[in-house]
Amino acid sequence: MIVDPDSIPAADVYKLLSGSVVPRPIAFVSTISDDGVPNLAPFSFFNAVCADPPTVSFCPGVRNPPKDTLANVRANGEFVVNIVSDHIAEQMNVCAAEFGPEESEFEASGLTAAPSEVVRPPRVAQSRVNMECRLIQIIEVSKKPVGASLVLGEVVRFHVDDAIVDEFKIDPDKLDAVGRMGGREYIHTRERFQMRRPR
Amino acid sequence: MIVDPDSIPAADVYKLLSGSVVPRPIAFVSTISDDGVPNLAPFSFFNAVCADPPTVSFCPGVRNPPKDTLANVRANGEFVVNIVSDHIAEQMNVCAAEFGPEESEFEASGLTAAPSEVVRPPRVAQSRVNMECRLIQIIEVSKKPVGASLVLGEVVRFHVDDAIVDEFKIDPDKLDAVGRMGGREYIHTRERFQMRRPR
Repeated sequence: MIVDPDSIPAADVYKLLSGSVVPRPIAFVSTISDDGVPNLAPFSFFNAVCADPPTVSFCPGVRNPPKDTLANVRANGEFVVNIVSDHIAEQMNVCAAEFGPEESEFEASGLTAAPSEVVRPPRVAQSRVNMECRLIQIIEVSKKPVGASLVLGEVVRFHVDDAIVDEFKIDPDKLDAVGRMGGREYIHTRERFQMRRPR
Repeated sequence: MIVDPDSIPAADVYKLLSGSVVPRPIAFVSTISDDGVPNLAPFSFFNAVCADPPTVSFCPGVRNPPKDTLANVRANGEFVVNIVSDHIAEQMNVCAAEFGPEESEFEASGLTAAPSEVVRPPRVAQSRVNMECRLIQIIEVSKKPVGASLVLGEVVRFHVDDAIVDEFKIDPDKLDAVGRMGGREYIHTRERFQMRRPR
């Protein structure tokens, strides 16, 4: 079938995009309000952008917008990307619910807030990789109700569990990350195969 | 371990990023030069951004830059994102090699160029999903040798194999997409699990 996205509802466009652009990595993003309330929310429209400077992007606002993350990043320009391994997948999912700005996702999920080294938002202690980030730029992609902002951040500190890394190479079995598919579906990263880049 | 990325080589930062931000979806991007030479190259710093307007991003230039894609997008503002299913993974990998601007990745890989509906670059006929895109914006993240540009595009047409879709919902088993891990590793999307969003 050939679809002009202008001819169908945005919710159906979302189904096409989120079902086709798979598997997606998950940024479990911690931020803090100027009142000191920490926030924690998952985003799967997320990826690395560049190694030098180390840059990541994520897009708050698509469906059920967890506005606290974006408000906090706008307010103080700092966030932490926590990587989601299988052992905290259910706790991450608890944080996908809508919480009020005064409610703590750390408390609700049972995850532990650990201090960061150079930014104010705490890290998730249970994550095997944390990336402390400073805001580079927010790009407004759309101001429509189901639109999004693209947040670009520079990684200023990596925290990596010593048990999963050898000379900066992450062991994918020990990281055991989960990814996002369409609908309610997630994926493990255990069923891998190798291809050597030609030439 | 705690790492200040400024203190290590960019190649090691790349290892940390590409090993942690997993699993990554793959944009197999077709473009065309103003001379009419088609180009085809895979990018895994790629994701959906927004459903309204339907927006995707990918980042050319990280490691072994396939400069033809970016040059073509700059020249005429059009590209097609072709989704990579398992049955064309090896052909996609052929196109990850460095080709000269006059060489055809379609010919080298044996993939078929099919006409697009509203943009000039051809689609990959074997892909089960193609997204015809028009450039929105290119954001220069870094001008360093291992830097990157972030390309934002609006999807103006979706082509979806009728056999894999039911009312805009893509069947993940029938799509059978592959994703990117660190190093030489890829992943299938067959080992899934479900979590219901709370509340």
